[in-house]
Amino acid sequence: MAMLVACRRISSRSVTTAFVGASFRWYSTAFREERDTFGPIQVPSDKLWGAQTQRSLQNFEIGGEHERMPEQIVRAFGVLKKCAAKVNMEYGLDPSIGKAIMQAAQEVAEGKLNDHFPLVVWQTGSGTQSNMNANEVIANRAAEILGHKRGEKFVHPNDHVNRSQSSNDTFPTVMHIAAAMEINLGLIPKLKLLHTTLHAKSTEFKDIVKIGRTHTQDATPLTLGQEFSGYTTQVKYGIDRVLCTLPRMYQLAQGGTAVGTGLNTKKGFDVKIAAAVAEETNLPFVTAENKFEALAAHDAFVETSGALNTIAVSLMKIANDIRFLGSGPRCGLGELILPENEPGSSIMPGKVNPTQCEALTMVCAQVMGNHVAITIGGSNGHFELNVYKPVIASNLLHSSRLLGDASASFEKNCVRGIQANRERISKLLHESLMLVTSLNPKIGYDNAALVAKTAHKEGSTLKEAALKLEVLNSEEFDNLVVPEKMIGPSD
Amino acid sequence: MAMLVACRRISSRSVTTAFVGASFRWYSTAFREERDTFGPIQVPSDKLWGAQTQRSLQNFEIGGEHERMPEQIVRAFGVLKKCAAKVNMEYGLDPSIGKAIMQAAQEVAEGKLNDHFPLVVWQTGSGTQSNMNANEVIANRAAEILGHKRGEKFVHPNDHVNRSQSSNDTFPTVMHIAAAMEINLGLIPKLKLLHTTLHAKSTEFKDIVKIGRTHTQDATPLTLGQEFSGYTTQVKYGIDRVLCTLPRMYQLAQGGTAVGTGLNTKKGFDVKIAAAVAEETNLPFVTAENKFEALAAHDAFVETSGALNTIAVSLMKIANDIRFLGSGPRCGLGELILPENEPGSSIMPGKVNPTQCEALTMVCAQVMGNHVAITIGGSNGHFELNVYKPVIASNLLHSSRLLGDASASFEKNCVRGIQANRERISKLLHESLMLVTSLNPKIGYDNAALVAKTAHKEGSTLKEAALKLEVLNSEEFDNLVVPEKMIGPSD
Amino acid sequence: MAMLVACRRISSRSVTTAFVGASFRWYSTAFREERDTFGPIQVPSDKLWGAQTQRSLQNFEIGGEHERMPEQIVRAFGVLKKCAAKVNMEYGLDPSIGKAIMQAAQEVAEGKLNDHFPLVVWQTGSGTQSNMNANEVIANRAAEILGHKRGEKFVHPNDHVNRSQSSNDTFPTVMHIAAAMEINLGLIPKLKLLHTTLHAKSTEFKDIVKIGRTHTQDATPLTLGQEFSGYTTQVKYGIDRVLCTLPRMYQLAQGGTAVGTGLNTKKGFDVKIAAAVAEETNLPFVTAENKFEALAAHDAFVETSGALNTIAVSLMKIANDIRFLGSGPRCGLGELILPENEPGSSIMPGKVNPTQCEALTMVCAQVMGNHVAITIGGSNGHFELNVYKPVIASNLLHSSRLLGDASASFEKNCVRGIQANRERISKLLHESLMLVTSLNPKIGYDNAALVAKTAHKEGSTLKEAALKLEVLNSEEFDNLVVPEKMIGPSD
Amino acid sequence: MAMLVACRRISSRSVTTAFVGASFRWYSTAFREERDTFGPIQVPSDKLWGAQTQRSLQNFEIGGEHERMPEQIVRAFGVLKKCAAKVNMEYGLDPSIGKAIMQAAQEVAEGKLNDHFPLVVWQTGSGTQSNMNANEVIANRAAEILGHKRGEKFVHPNDHVNRSQSSNDTFPTVMHIAAAMEINLGLIPKLKLLHTTLHAKSTEFKDIVKIGRTHTQDATPLTLGQEFSGYTTQVKYGIDRVLCTLPRMYQLAQGGTAVGTGLNTKKGFDVKIAAAVAEETNLPFVTAENKFEALAAHDAFVETSGALNTIAVSLMKIANDIRFLGSGPRCGLGELILPENEPGSSIMPGKVNPTQCEALTMVCAQVMGNHVAITIGGSNGHFELNVYKPVIASNLLHSSRLLGDASASFEKNCVRGIQANRERISKLLHESLMLVTSLNPKIGYDNAALVAKTAHKEGSTLKEAALKLEVLNSEEFDNLVVPEKMIGPSD
Repeated sequence: MAMLVACRRISSRSVTTAFVGASFRWYSTAFREERDTFGPIQVPSDKLWGAQTQRSLQNFEIGGEHERMPEQIVRAFGVLKKCAAKVNMEYGLDPSIGKAIMQAAQEVAEGKLNDHFPLVVWQTGSGTQSNMNANEVIANRAAEILGHKRGEKFVHPNDHVNRSQSSNDTFPTVMHIAAAMEINLGLIPKLKLLHTTLHAKSTEFKDIVKIGRTHTQDATPLTLGQEFSGYTTQVKYGIDRVLCTLPRMYQLAQGGTAVGTGLNTKKGFDVKIAAAVAEETNLPFVTAENKFEALAAHDAFVETSGALNTIAVSLMKIANDIRFLGSGPRCGLGELILPENEPGSSIMPGKVNPTQCEALTMVCAQVMGNHVAITIGGSNGHFELNVYKPVIASNLLHSSRLLGDASASFEKNCVRGIQANRERISKLLHESLMLVTSLNPKIGYDNAALVAKTAHKEGSTLKEAALKLEVLNSEEFDNLVVPEKMIGPSD
Repeated sequence: MAMLVACRRISSRSVTTAFVGASFRWYSTAFREERDTFGPIQVPSDKLWGAQTQRSLQNFEIGGEHERMPEQIVRAFGVLKKCAAKVNMEYGLDPSIGKAIMQAAQEVAEGKLNDHFPLVVWQTGSGTQSNMNANEVIANRAAEILGHKRGEKFVHPNDHVNRSQSSNDTFPTVMHIAAAMEINLGLIPKLKLLHTTLHAKSTEFKDIVKIGRTHTQDATPLTLGQEFSGYTTQVKYGIDRVLCTLPRMYQLAQGGTAVGTGLNTKKGFDVKIAAAVAEETNLPFVTAENKFEALAAHDAFVETSGALNTIAVSLMKIANDIRFLGSGPRCGLGELILPENEPGSSIMPGKVNPTQCEALTMVCAQVMGNHVAITIGGSNGHFELNVYKPVIASNLLHSSRLLGDASASFEKNCVRGIQANRERISKLLHESLMLVTSLNPKIGYDNAALVAKTAHKEGSTLKEAALKLEVLNSEEFDNLVVPEKMIGPSD
Repeated sequence: MAMLVACRRISSRSVTTAFVGASFRWYSTAFREERDTFGPIQVPSDKLWGAQTQRSLQNFEIGGEHERMPEQIVRAFGVLKKCAAKVNMEYGLDPSIGKAIMQAAQEVAEGKLNDHFPLVVWQTGSGTQSNMNANEVIANRAAEILGHKRGEKFVHPNDHVNRSQSSNDTFPTVMHIAAAMEINLGLIPKLKLLHTTLHAKSTEFKDIVKIGRTHTQDATPLTLGQEFSGYTTQVKYGIDRVLCTLPRMYQLAQGGTAVGTGLNTKKGFDVKIAAAVAEETNLPFVTAENKFEALAAHDAFVETSGALNTIAVSLMKIANDIRFLGSGPRCGLGELILPENEPGSSIMPGKVNPTQCEALTMVCAQVMGNHVAITIGGSNGHFELNVYKPVIASNLLHSSRLLGDASASFEKNCVRGIQANRERISKLLHESLMLVTSLNPKIGYDNAALVAKTAHKEGSTLKEAALKLEVLNSEEFDNLVVPEKMIGPSD
Repeated sequence: MAMLVACRRISSRSVTTAFVGASFRWYSTAFREERDTFGPIQVPSDKLWGAQTQRSLQNFEIGGEHERMPEQIVRAFGVLKKCAAKVNMEYGLDPSIGKAIMQAAQEVAEGKLNDHFPLVVWQTGSGTQSNMNANEVIANRAAEILGHKRGEKFVHPNDHVNRSQSSNDTFPTVMHIAAAMEINLGLIPKLKLLHTTLHAKSTEFKDIVKIGRTHTQDATPLTLGQEFSGYTTQVKYGIDRVLCTLPRMYQLAQGGTAVGTGLNTKKGFDVKIAAAVAEETNLPFVTAENKFEALAAHDAFVETSGALNTIAVSLMKIANDIRFLGSGPRCGLGELILPENEPGSSIMPGKVNPTQCEALTMVCAQVMGNHVAITIGGSNGHFELNVYKPVIASNLLHSSRLLGDASASFEKNCVRGIQANRERISKLLHESLMLVTSLNPKIGYDNAALVAKTAHKEGSTLKEAALKLEVLNSEEFDNLVVPEKMIGPSD
């Protein structure tokens, strides 16, 4: 049995020798020989992968197993290889082999063979080795299904599984499939959930008049519902933004083969395979209108990452506001009461922290960083192929997953339970000097400024100041300064 | 007369004392007094600005005059203030004053009063001081038009010019106006020009079969026209990308006043002013559906900047390809002949460099950096107001202007004049080993690999190797290896 | 006379046609012919530049005059060309020509000839055209000094002024000279000033005990002086950080000529010229130990920009804290009173905003963005030359200048005038629940938590809660809860 | 027994329902009750963690198990808690408990208890939950060592393991320990290895004269050894750069407790614990001179990340050069022969790709992105605490690990095996036109340019052109144009 063993020299006396550089290798009591154009190589018997996967494992010891190619990519390879076999049967692939490939590929698509995809992101920039990993695993599994042994190549990874394909078109294709599925099935529903809850809060708080704040300074009032309506709109537009980029994400490179020309495919192969993927995934994939662009550039990822970056910007604003509005309990703004999910501090009892806001804003920082990695990778393609495909794909999938999960966690563990501290909100509102703005139309800007300055200097209320300065009488003041009338334009 | 004088202590013996920290002040032989709620202040007589502008000048000596608020913002203030006066007249603004404001604002819109806008980007984050600069200049100019003196406030900067407005809604509004105009009138037409020329080149080169390159290594052939079709598609999608973001850019904050509620405006003011701006600019501006979002966030800028970032990524790929394909003259790839626009080196005669590619890729690096600045600014808003407005606006306008200009320069001084070096292209193609791929369907992957490896080791041609290995005869080889048949899928 | 005229078609009816794309050209009533290897070209008579500068002007209409090569680069060219002439005289340059070059170069170094350097950053990526601009201006000016006419090449821009040099070594050299001078003469003194004032505030506030805040939540107390000591330390380390990077910035590429080999120079030229620059600038410049690295990479700029990026991070933290601590006047934290420098809002009288914090944090966002532009430019060099030199140089100089100026403005117009609102600070401290931490050692963590939770729920003080729960008596409480004893470790 | 089970609804018919959103939970057949100030909670019996860890697990379902807090942080907690127990015994901690804590902590430091640290990066921004995870695991393990049961709190996670500590000082401390160890034990040795091999190559290639390339165009010659000396210098400086930042990384926050004051510690605790950590790790850790800075800011991480970013820039340049110099085999530059480690393409036999360069440059893109995430996290601290600690720490550790591993892989699988293609190098050199530069001193710049242009136009050699133009005779040409004499300054 093969086992992942960490080769660490662990010293009982010192942590330093053991601290870093753990390198993982596959030990096994049984091996079989696999072979490629480079010759034979030993592969663990209980693994389905072949020679090229094994070489990559040995040549790219970078980052350890946490750095494996994202599962979404692996499973998208299952989707693609299933569809390719289906279409290849139309073009003459032996049906018994084709069906076995389809069955094996389905297992990959369902995540059942994840353990047979050991390669890391930091491999060849075309993702060739992961494509071969998929070809080898599916070929060996299909052969088994047909009663043959692993390594015999009864089903051939290149000639059968990769038929009419090249890494250069399959990897971009699985990038697009994985990203579109992750966004549609993971991110969007979670953003919609957050949107719904923010909208509900906006409605719940629609009658709570509170002080506004601009430049972090007291400003004219608004309702807490209005404040939350801004957040709601940000999330709504965020969903729109990412959807706007998907038409280009739905374009598949498949059929371009090595350089975009489609050499070694048949006419129509590209259209058929896009249709098959669309059917398999229920997403509107089409064949890319220009395969040269689809291989040589990943602008679609840079664009979509730009939308995710914008969503991160929105969520950072929202989470920051909520933690500041919930700051306290006694020495902060204290307008919101956030749900208590855990003890906040190991030394300060009774303190509860806005931890969901913190997790979310950390995710936002990560997404902004990932966006730069994608941008740099996207800009450095040369000639017929961009060779930053794995880093581009993994960062986008990382960003999408984190944004989705963090939005869901934030919704569930924070937003849903937010309560307004009505007493505190009312107290702050009525102490404020900024209600003076409502005097502008009556006594002019300069006089209004004078009233506010006087109250500020003397620590008095606006009304006291106004009366003292004799710019208004008491009744006039009361008629003018009504916060509830200050939350919209006049008729 | 007021003059900009650089206060440098210039030493005749040493450059060090004088090198940095030049600080600019306005010296004048004549001043008038202007006044605001802070009191009186001296302003150069020949300038139209007032007290608040003067205070900002003195309080923000950051970066020097190169850092002035972008001209597009100044001119957009002209557009907005003209429209505001027009709408305010409907709501009771004295028509004689209103018309004078409109005339003065038109002069600002046309750039005639640029010299009266001295403030830098690095001021208050709401752009308040630039809004007041516009109010003061227009008020003083309108007063002059009506026969009154500067500084008298016959036309009042706040009560008349800024009527029903706040910096907090005007500045976002001019940001959107300036950006939408810059993109529509500057960037898009220049990108379209580049697209047209790339497309023409793609057509011109459609019959030139050349070696493909993936991983910077020789690959299967394609036509030079196909290669350029990839670039063409990138630029085409780039235009689509930025257009896709504009619906949110066309939303104007005007009418939100200080915190988004619209306090101190009349119902309908927001819709009317958006309509007026739309008419004035021939662009489909509408009032923002949520004014709280429109003041507190600038996600629309982050989003559009994301599209510009994607365009920068595309253009960097294209420019990199072109300079590498044009590398040489004798020791590079040499497939393209780039126009010679200038001597390339002060020491190496006869050398001509891909300088347009260099300028363009430098612009791309700048745009990617500007995008990060915008992202950070966009994420740091608090409560009812984002106070990174000037830095967000100036970076987006910078990016758009640079991308547009550099695209136009690249089109005119490089792409338009690119010639294919047909002789060199043909020579490389026929020396290549990668035509071997066309043997795959006939002799299988493993045999084809053997032919290529043999030719590689022995320095021979593919044909020689194939014959020696006896996998094909001469006629079969010639029938199979036809580059012109390798540039698309088979029937 | 030559004039800079903006070629705008200004329409009196519509702003749209005129809005963007202003392109600048030099109109002149008099021209002279200049000539280079490309042939003759017309140059404005009143300008000192020659043919190559003129070609660049016409070939790179990108960004307009705001995008000119930074003045610090132009003046550093003056420094370098003066030193080169001095050293070249030791190697046989005609002394009369050498002295005239030195005199002309000194004028460039002093900024007297700035108007003769019209080229933009967006030119060839080696800065060749700016090097030729310097050569041409100095040659023509030196010729005039010697009684000859412009354009005659009595002093030759290449053979005399650029003798033993190449753009490829001069431009990196002036990059390093300009950056080192800007940092030493501009940034560092201004950061030191800020450090001194923060330190003084830390001392001034050393006895003011206040509530601490972690997670934006109330925490155990500290003194306001301690809080400011954190800021002080950040700025102090910032100065250390940038100084740590300068050893590599003091390495000059001069002597490497075109590819780093030093072809066409004499042995020892590189050492002598670095010594001359060191003497001229009073900075410890030395010749680069490896000229290949010095031309092909600008890692030194990426490194120093990383230090500036760290300073930006520090200043953003400090400015954010100060604006939040100064938030109010009545509905914020209100612990600090910031100086009032200007009216804050055009609609809300009496409001004063933390505008210096806003300008500073906008600068920080810009510096972080510039850092990415530098990083991307730095990573994209090829073979013997990095061709992102102008964008790298201009962004670093921009960042350094902005950080210096904004620090000085922040110090002068904000920090220096900050006052503690002692009354407010004291009120918040004594209302806080977090003093409960001092009960931990006496009654244990779990009991202390219970006291705090009880007070929180019931809106009571800690003491009331503690007595009610009978975990302490009144005297014990008073002896334990003494904020002044909570600001350091115990004996 | 507890098991990690992926709760996926796997459909046999469609991949879409199962694709994303896999959420992991811990199923177990046996639980025990743990308790904190929030009350009781069920914890898997076979795990050592307690109530607070369990709550975090349930409240932060973000990203899945790939997003766990980096192992280096977990192990650094082991180091710290061991040292804290040791010092706490000096201040009165019961020795039997103290020793058990030390033993348990040692197991954590050695990585033996990694499975008991399930929390993800995306938790509270102070890392409190990971600190409590460490406290809980060590307390339960220490209790077991002393013969007590898990969950009984015979050894108390707060009162004993976390004694005199707060998350707010422990987490920054482990960040610094983990980063300093990762850099010293992982990154630096691997960079030194790369440096050594590059230096050896530089020596090996010192006599191979080749064409230089600037602007991607042919330039004057240099030796291949000189070219590699540039790379060598870049890596050498990279090591210097990161070392320069470590003095601030060696400063430990421990002793600052909750807000930096050191409340609830004894005088001298901070110095003792830094000394203990230094002894344990053999690294020169000291107590931070200002604890307020050490909790509220992580500028040290931003600074060190800036150094890693610079290294990424250097390595990207080097890897790009090597892949372009190795491009071919027949249609590229072809000057270097890179080791063949694997078959390059699934469709193009015989093609071998520069995969190590690709993996390395992808890592560089990631490091640049991570740097932005760290920058953003670092800039967003508020008041006494920065709450982006986990994202800052994980990105820095990620960058350092990836750079180290990728450098080692690049050294082993690429640089070490690089061979010069001497025949190709020589051919290109002698075809070049750029040797013309050596004519400059003899015939002047303008004539030399004419020779080069003539040869270029006529496709002739330089010598033919020079003779035809009668600027030199044959003997003069041969004496002047000697590439071997062009690789350095003259005497």
